[in-house]
Amino acid sequence: MIRWNNDYNRVAHPLVLEALMNNAAESNGGYGIDAWCEKGAAEIKKHLGDVDADIHFLVGGTQTNFTVIASALRPFQSVISADTGHVCAHETGAIENTGHKIHALPNTDGKITAEQIAADAEYYLGSDCKEHITQPKMVYISSPTEFGTIYKKAELEAISATCRKYGFYLFLDGARMGYGLGCAENDLTLADIAALTDVFYIGGTKCGAMFGEALVITNDALKPDFRSCIKQNGGMLAKGWLLGQQFYTLFATGAYFDACAKADEYAMRIKAAFEAKGMEFYINSPTNQQFVLLSRQHFEALEKNHVSEYQFTLPDGRVCTRYCTAWSTLESDVEQLVSDINAL
Amino acid sequence: MIRWNNDYNRVAHPLVLEALMNNAAESNGGYGIDAWCEKGAAEIKKHLGDVDADIHFLVGGTQTNFTVIASALRPFQSVISADTGHVCAHETGAIENTGHKIHALPNTDGKITAEQIAADAEYYLGSDCKEHITQPKMVYISSPTEFGTIYKKAELEAISATCRKYGFYLFLDGARMGYGLGCAENDLTLADIAALTDVFYIGGTKCGAMFGEALVITNDALKPDFRSCIKQNGGMLAKGWLLGQQFYTLFATGAYFDACAKADEYAMRIKAAFEAKGMEFYINSPTNQQFVLLSRQHFEALEKNHVSEYQFTLPDGRVCTRYCTAWSTLESDVEQLVSDINAL
Amino acid sequence: MIRWNNDYNRVAHPLVLEALMNNAAESNGGYGIDAWCEKGAAEIKKHLGDVDADIHFLVGGTQTNFTVIASALRPFQSVISADTGHVCAHETGAIENTGHKIHALPNTDGKITAEQIAADAEYYLGSDCKEHITQPKMVYISSPTEFGTIYKKAELEAISATCRKYGFYLFLDGARMGYGLGCAENDLTLADIAALTDVFYIGGTKCGAMFGEALVITNDALKPDFRSCIKQNGGMLAKGWLLGQQFYTLFATGAYFDACAKADEYAMRIKAAFEAKGMEFYINSPTNQQFVLLSRQHFEALEKNHVSEYQFTLPDGRVCTRYCTAWSTLESDVEQLVSDINAL
Amino acid sequence: MIRWNNDYNRVAHPLVLEALMNNAAESNGGYGIDAWCEKGAAEIKKHLGDVDADIHFLVGGTQTNFTVIASALRPFQSVISADTGHVCAHETGAIENTGHKIHALPNTDGKITAEQIAADAEYYLGSDCKEHITQPKMVYISSPTEFGTIYKKAELEAISATCRKYGFYLFLDGARMGYGLGCAENDLTLADIAALTDVFYIGGTKCGAMFGEALVITNDALKPDFRSCIKQNGGMLAKGWLLGQQFYTLFATGAYFDACAKADEYAMRIKAAFEAKGMEFYINSPTNQQFVLLSRQHFEALEKNHVSEYQFTLPDGRVCTRYCTAWSTLESDVEQLVSDINAL
Repeated sequence: MIRWNNDYNRVAHPLVLEALMNNAAESNGGYGIDAWCEKGAAEIKKHLGDVDADIHFLVGGTQTNFTVIASALRPFQSVISADTGHVCAHETGAIENTGHKIHALPNTDGKITAEQIAADAEYYLGSDCKEHITQPKMVYISSPTEFGTIYKKAELEAISATCRKYGFYLFLDGARMGYGLGCAENDLTLADIAALTDVFYIGGTKCGAMFGEALVITNDALKPDFRSCIKQNGGMLAKGWLLGQQFYTLFATGAYFDACAKADEYAMRIKAAFEAKGMEFYINSPTNQQFVLLSRQHFEALEKNHVSEYQFTLPDGRVCTRYCTAWSTLESDVEQLVSDINAL
Repeated sequence: MIRWNNDYNRVAHPLVLEALMNNAAESNGGYGIDAWCEKGAAEIKKHLGDVDADIHFLVGGTQTNFTVIASALRPFQSVISADTGHVCAHETGAIENTGHKIHALPNTDGKITAEQIAADAEYYLGSDCKEHITQPKMVYISSPTEFGTIYKKAELEAISATCRKYGFYLFLDGARMGYGLGCAENDLTLADIAALTDVFYIGGTKCGAMFGEALVITNDALKPDFRSCIKQNGGMLAKGWLLGQQFYTLFATGAYFDACAKADEYAMRIKAAFEAKGMEFYINSPTNQQFVLLSRQHFEALEKNHVSEYQFTLPDGRVCTRYCTAWSTLESDVEQLVSDINAL
Repeated sequence: MIRWNNDYNRVAHPLVLEALMNNAAESNGGYGIDAWCEKGAAEIKKHLGDVDADIHFLVGGTQTNFTVIASALRPFQSVISADTGHVCAHETGAIENTGHKIHALPNTDGKITAEQIAADAEYYLGSDCKEHITQPKMVYISSPTEFGTIYKKAELEAISATCRKYGFYLFLDGARMGYGLGCAENDLTLADIAALTDVFYIGGTKCGAMFGEALVITNDALKPDFRSCIKQNGGMLAKGWLLGQQFYTLFATGAYFDACAKADEYAMRIKAAFEAKGMEFYINSPTNQQFVLLSRQHFEALEKNHVSEYQFTLPDGRVCTRYCTAWSTLESDVEQLVSDINAL
Repeated sequence: MIRWNNDYNRVAHPLVLEALMNNAAESNGGYGIDAWCEKGAAEIKKHLGDVDADIHFLVGGTQTNFTVIASALRPFQSVISADTGHVCAHETGAIENTGHKIHALPNTDGKITAEQIAADAEYYLGSDCKEHITQPKMVYISSPTEFGTIYKKAELEAISATCRKYGFYLFLDGARMGYGLGCAENDLTLADIAALTDVFYIGGTKCGAMFGEALVITNDALKPDFRSCIKQNGGMLAKGWLLGQQFYTLFATGAYFDACAKADEYAMRIKAAFEAKGMEFYINSPTNQQFVLLSRQHFEALEKNHVSEYQFTLPDGRVCTRYCTAWSTLESDVEQLVSDINAL
């Protein structure tokens, strides 16, 4: 059985494991105050262009999301998100648990637009009873989204300009950042993202690290005492250097970018194979996640050798299921899957 | 100028004020432990039929809503509400501030249905990743709703049965209870509501009291330590007897029911006057709130003598505005408004 | 039976009730946007000297306390308080419920000192692990305290200077402000308090109002969006003008000051009577609350005609009990109590 | 430089790293639903005797503590802890951030007693104003404590009996469990702890794992939906099998017990060396943490070759500093330190 159901089903990139073993005898300072975290942050900063960033390493995505939002907002402020956004749909109400309402915007591709954000801002500004509703103050977007789609540079510029116009913080969840940067459609760099957002994170867990997310804060207003927020929210790893070392390795070697780009290529081969058989997709994704619509019979046929992640069944009986490639995907696995698709 | 913009713009029903003055020299125990609260609760219980209820008096509606929800739910549990529900749309994120997500259901008349609730329940039960989403555990409805509509007995029975099937608490916000009970369409009694819900409140602020809401808890699971929740959430009035005395007066005299029913009658006269002139309504309300659609010219003409509450402007240029009658509305005011409508 | 157990056992000062009745036919705007709240704030500002204050009217003290603290602090920040402070000892964890730790300082008279505050500040600043502990950011004091003691001007100046040195907000809970200002020992004016603190409140509930507290915010950093915080925390009374009108009446007539000063005088007469009989006090209070130590026999003898508030029993068998005078205390009640004390 | 400042300064026990490398090519299910977590839990259960336990793997201690407490308590309930307890003194107000007050008990050795707990319970039960104070519902203890001391079996039995008498949950934080079980003074087994507490955790991070804590819930009331709480609080590792595999390895091989016991032996050799030189200790610890009092001169002399964790300076000028041994301590390091102590 080949596991395509997600992109976090193997330990870590070989270079990460090698680095870990090579340094296993070292002793390091605790809680992220150590040379590895410094080195990891320095490597990331090489990609950020001309911004003055604070970089923090946290363990996981949900934790990073609610820590950022809880740190940034006053109690009556809310965060705008796509209704399919991770903070809205997959985190067990973690944001609300910190006290904040999510204003969920409808969407069809995992993305929201500058126009939607502006409309929300104008609604609030135009209200006669502002103190009876929450005040939007942050916009959360993920890129790639939960559906594998990405924001293009022009879209992100428009959103960024809208956020700055209305005084909103723009927070980009890059849990799958590597797959976004590595895909053929992408026209954004990390420096662009750093310049256009106020805070974002570079996902490690799904992109070659064993675990860990690198949070980049560029807006000075969001920087003070952020380590206190991390600790309070349970995100401060005692052995913090494990995170710094992984990001150092992935960035210094370029493996972060290369491994994810390769996974995107594999995803395109799989996508092409499905398309060649006339299968449709729930959404047109240029990255490592593919949401294909299969007849129940085809779905079950493929599941004999492969594990995908069932999503839901359409009224016409077709199954929507997710195939993910990852930094760990083997070419032989892709060949097997393509062959099995062709045989349907 | 006659103020129709809301139903809380005058102090209190004359009988309430009279009782207050008559007893001003009395001294009473603090924090709701006093004879007046006992008497107020006893009067209310006469209407509740065969349930074993705990009755608490709180100061206001938002406070009552978040105290009930925070007391009832574990952190990962959510409350189902119409997206126009007061907890969702008018309370500055007070529910989220207590840590709980609201699952907002779309609606066109302020009401939700048993079918919508069942669909939500089934979605959760059918999920493969329950621990990644919030667990619905309470249903919040208001009746009358924020648009003046009411739940009929059959609707409430269906919702109640659905809630019991899925183990959801049913919480009815009766901020305008009196206007619901008093309207011509109504087929529910307080005893019906007590039997069909787990917790509900009988609004005083908008229905003749100076301020205050009477919370009725019928489900034993929701009763323990509720006074601790009230105190923690700032709802325990030092001079709690002021609340008990008001409800005693309104219920012992029947003024709660009579004054609200009269306001409903007045609203129907105003509604008829608008209809006679061919005006349409945003929604067909049988109670004291009327959301009428007026041309800008008509709207401004009426505002010369009357204050209504502007809601929004339709694409066709018509204004939606709210006219509320109340326990305090004078017949002469109604006559003036009807006359001014007729003159449009 | 004469009730001395607290200072909130009667409805309201006669002038407040008279104003209420006189204006019962008026209609007013909702949620504190009305002429009475403007007039009430204007009267209070006459006493505040040369500060630019925002004034808000809330319903009760616990609600005011947690709303102020939740509005002012970021999640990892804590509030310093005497361990006997109301927020620490009498509010069911309401402050912690908003997410904030209280750093409780030991004390023997309800008061804390500038030295204690400075020591706390230095402990934090000197810590090698600041992100593992909460950051003190606000100091909460009550005056009069829960034991009736007051801060003298020199003490408040020292605390204020310390808070400003360390960047702490100083919040004074004046639930019994009138009794503090009116006592013989007092050397503070409202203008002094406004100048020395960042936010404080003038208690109405215990000082002649039916209910309500007037919050005065002088620090600009604490002003933005405070009405949103009030609404979110359930403190925005629909009929907000009821609060403004009460404070207008109490301040425009001087009744706030006169009635409380009279209550202090009565308390001193009672205190003198106990002292003349050789009774000791748990604490030497110059205001309306007197915590006297009585033998069980004397305690029970007095309770035949009087209701005091039992506090605790000392190891030597004596009972500590509280006698409160109030704006509503009658001279004849004082005479009766003094006579009964003399007869012990 | 030899690092003795903490017990989490090296990656992981060699057997853990070996297992990790051996299984690096495996793919596994996400979020702790996998064979390794099952195996890890099964190994742990072999030590728990006759209890029906739910076992969950979380990433870190602070996270585990606040997730357990937030899951167990209603909003107005508080947790009793030593004032030196980790939840009280080292977690940036994480518990208060979930809304709960900690009732901090004074202590001199990191431990609290059954008598102190009973006194707290009786205080609450005897209160005339229960709804104005928080309700104690859980007792938190750590063993070993933050000072290296441990609870003996008789002490834990007394605490357990007291908790059961008053209906309190007993939660034991075993971040350093291995060092407690392995020390000469210990008379408790994991089965004893499972029988006497309601929930406890077996620390991995400080006891041989790379990271991770194994939470054991024995009280049925605390079991439902705990995975939802983990996810909501950011503690659900995407690659959850990494946690299960580590605990499987440490328990199946016995390394958890052996490596920690060895560290305790080393600590006793260091302790003996200090004692032979006449040095005193801040506290008499039988486990891997030693808090020694050194003259400034001796402290600085040792710091030339060794890194300890400075705690504070006594009025007499002596420094209190912490020396930790760990599963990773080398005998040669111990010999060096002992030699350097002897040379003082």
